[in-house]
Amino acid sequence: MKLFSSVNDVKDVPALVARALQLKQNPYAHQHLGKNKTLSLVFLNPSLRTRMSTQKAALNLGMNVIVLNIDKEGWALELRDNVIMNGTTVEHIREAAGVMGEYSDIIGVRSFPGLKDREEDYSESIFNKFVEFCKVPVVSLESATRHPLQSLADLVTIEELKTKARPKVVLTWAPHIKALPQAVPNSFAEWMCKADVDFTIAHPAGYELCADFTNGATITHNQDEAIKDADFIYVKNWSAYEPYGAVTGGNEGWMLTNAKLDAVAPNAKVMHCLPVRRDLELSSEILDGPKSVVIHEAGNRVWAAQAVLKQMLETL
Amino acid sequence: MKLFSSVNDVKDVPALVARALQLKQNPYAHQHLGKNKTLSLVFLNPSLRTRMSTQKAALNLGMNVIVLNIDKEGWALELRDNVIMNGTTVEHIREAAGVMGEYSDIIGVRSFPGLKDREEDYSESIFNKFVEFCKVPVVSLESATRHPLQSLADLVTIEELKTKARPKVVLTWAPHIKALPQAVPNSFAEWMCKADVDFTIAHPAGYELCADFTNGATITHNQDEAIKDADFIYVKNWSAYEPYGAVTGGNEGWMLTNAKLDAVAPNAKVMHCLPVRRDLELSSEILDGPKSVVIHEAGNRVWAAQAVLKQMLETL
Amino acid sequence: MKLFSSVNDVKDVPALVARALQLKQNPYAHQHLGKNKTLSLVFLNPSLRTRMSTQKAALNLGMNVIVLNIDKEGWALELRDNVIMNGTTVEHIREAAGVMGEYSDIIGVRSFPGLKDREEDYSESIFNKFVEFCKVPVVSLESATRHPLQSLADLVTIEELKTKARPKVVLTWAPHIKALPQAVPNSFAEWMCKADVDFTIAHPAGYELCADFTNGATITHNQDEAIKDADFIYVKNWSAYEPYGAVTGGNEGWMLTNAKLDAVAPNAKVMHCLPVRRDLELSSEILDGPKSVVIHEAGNRVWAAQAVLKQMLETL
Repeated sequence: MKLFSSVNDVKDVPALVARALQLKQNPYAHQHLGKNKTLSLVFLNPSLRTRMSTQKAALNLGMNVIVLNIDKEGWALELRDNVIMNGTTVEHIREAAGVMGEYSDIIGVRSFPGLKDREEDYSESIFNKFVEFCKVPVVSLESATRHPLQSLADLVTIEELKTKARPKVVLTWAPHIKALPQAVPNSFAEWMCKADVDFTIAHPAGYELCADFTNGATITHNQDEAIKDADFIYVKNWSAYEPYGAVTGGNEGWMLTNAKLDAVAPNAKVMHCLPVRRDLELSSEILDGPKSVVIHEAGNRVWAAQAVLKQMLETL
Repeated sequence: MKLFSSVNDVKDVPALVARALQLKQNPYAHQHLGKNKTLSLVFLNPSLRTRMSTQKAALNLGMNVIVLNIDKEGWALELRDNVIMNGTTVEHIREAAGVMGEYSDIIGVRSFPGLKDREEDYSESIFNKFVEFCKVPVVSLESATRHPLQSLADLVTIEELKTKARPKVVLTWAPHIKALPQAVPNSFAEWMCKADVDFTIAHPAGYELCADFTNGATITHNQDEAIKDADFIYVKNWSAYEPYGAVTGGNEGWMLTNAKLDAVAPNAKVMHCLPVRRDLELSSEILDGPKSVVIHEAGNRVWAAQAVLKQMLETL
Repeated sequence: MKLFSSVNDVKDVPALVARALQLKQNPYAHQHLGKNKTLSLVFLNPSLRTRMSTQKAALNLGMNVIVLNIDKEGWALELRDNVIMNGTTVEHIREAAGVMGEYSDIIGVRSFPGLKDREEDYSESIFNKFVEFCKVPVVSLESATRHPLQSLADLVTIEELKTKARPKVVLTWAPHIKALPQAVPNSFAEWMCKADVDFTIAHPAGYELCADFTNGATITHNQDEAIKDADFIYVKNWSAYEPYGAVTGGNEGWMLTNAKLDAVAPNAKVMHCLPVRRDLELSSEILDGPKSVVIHEAGNRVWAAQAVLKQMLETL
């Protein structure tokens, strides 16, 4: 594997999930693979889970890890082509990525969208320039439109905790006060559409995701109907795809509560990628109660990352 | 050992000191203990000595280390319970600590006090929430009211450099322009009160420490009298406990000088936890002269941390 | 080797270059040297290449690495002597360096010049205080007036890519909008003056470098004449040495283009230390074309650092 940027980069999704669960049982068995290999983790944005879990995964594999908060510790990056660099940016992404490739066997990159220009964000120009110019295998640590390590961990969690062969999985929109990217819901949707699950997406009118990611999903504006008898409910806010980045008010009722779960989905496990704003996106009573699997899900980020890194190391 | 937050977490203080001094002689003998174990160091505040010495201690023990400046590299943390998170904080300490526990065998946490609300600071609510929610052993890297790795290193230094069985140790207040926490003097006092030393605290009226930490100490407002014939003089500023966080002027004369030492304590060794403001808290002539042991003391931070981590690794 | 701050610290320059090229062939052969040894990298300024390549070099040698962005992660440093520290600085460089030496076998330090006071910058007071007070071997990661790891990597690159025994090497000034240090051109000049190359420096009138660094070089204000038949053209901006830090306009024509190269230096390889401002300092057409060796040159930073660290480890 030379690139892990979306589910489309994975030949055999069930095999990758199985490998992650095997690594969870036996984390340190492959340290010869990573010996003298360097993973560089490059952050253009904040990160807690991805930062720590990917480091841990690489260390489990015997790799060296270099972490770079590039805009704070390196130089302000120019991301556009064909500009005279007489402003505030000091280094072009072409050189920065090229140089980082010289010091790395694998690079992980996090670059959030601007949420201003949909075409630019959905072209994944920043992430793709890293891939093009660094010339080594690249793992997405969340790009403008996808967060595949999260989605793989989510699928690993569902596979691990499911109590029936084909569980019902619901992605439900949640309220927020800020415009958030569509990366997590896009990515979760495209992974679920390739998994052996019964998949439904619920959101208020106006929050339709780009259809490229939701092919095969049931889509509804009725949250209660959607979550009925669900096995897994994935809670996440996102801003509108059209008009791009918009946030409309009046949807506070979409916050999931125990009353809703008790009424129609008493056996559901509740997931969230984190960070989560308590009692805005998701009620404290759920997060602090037995239905929440969010910490366990975050723990599985290690095995998702380790499965991907292992596969990359095997093809170096 | 599952928790290292104060001297009360240590069953046998002399044995821990002895172990630190043994590790100083033989730092790399226990690397099997740390193999494939991860220490995460989580900073909510700046750190130089603690950051570097604890990393070094863990590396000496064969551990992996992940460093996280959480508010800068992760997400702005919400520390209060029962708030709707519709402001500037993005992640609750409950989730953040829980997630970090998933990636760590031991966690070190630094969280300074706000110095506004004494009850809140002295309840150690931030540190205690980390301990509660991360569910792995925790080492304090300085909390609101204590700095136990510093105090252990201080006691190691006294044990190492003392020239009599029961030395006279004096903690003396020093001038400063800002309101500083009581964590270092509290902690130093509670460790000295449990050690085999003759312990005196000197400070201007109004700078009484909380009595919980000073039981057994001689307390005086007369610096000259206090330091007379001292073997070790520990210099440190702190703000008032009552009214909480207050700084009163007019105590510039409390800065230690060679003239004072020559007059009444010619054989004293001078200690400070660092960082120190030169010629405000402590005179340059002392820091640059033969009586200062501050760099040596800082070096002992490694062995203090290594003794604590070793004991935690043994009980994982 | 106890100090690597300039070419004058190197007894045998060709041997050091040869060692770097040997390490490039065989990077992992010396890991016994670095076992249980700690390199601390201390940054007072941003860094991408130096940060990553020096980490990689140390890891290749089996060392542990601690990275410290001191002013952000530690305490605001006081760099002047004989001041009462009652302002914004919290820790003096004397203590900070002394303490870091306690935790480190080798320290790397980056400290840029202020470009206000030439005498102070050229006295290298900050770097020299680190060396004096840390008491362990020190590698410059770029100081006020020199960047020796860069220059060594540059010479390694020239040695590796040259097609004749004594190549023609030209350092040419390039336009910029900000006042940049003279560290890279000073350092490149003093290394080239000690290497077996035909060395020319070209810059507009007013940009004369300090003569201490250029002894033996041909110096001209005519760029076309300088680069004629060059084998290597090293492009770099710098501000004036006299008046110190000045930037004069009207030199935009000094930006290197393919037209210039085609006219007089068709076989030249183009070098730059990076970061580079595209189409201000150096044209995109060159950077993206076959004459540029800037990424390759940055890659050689690893072997330069590894050769220096190896020599230091051998004399610990």
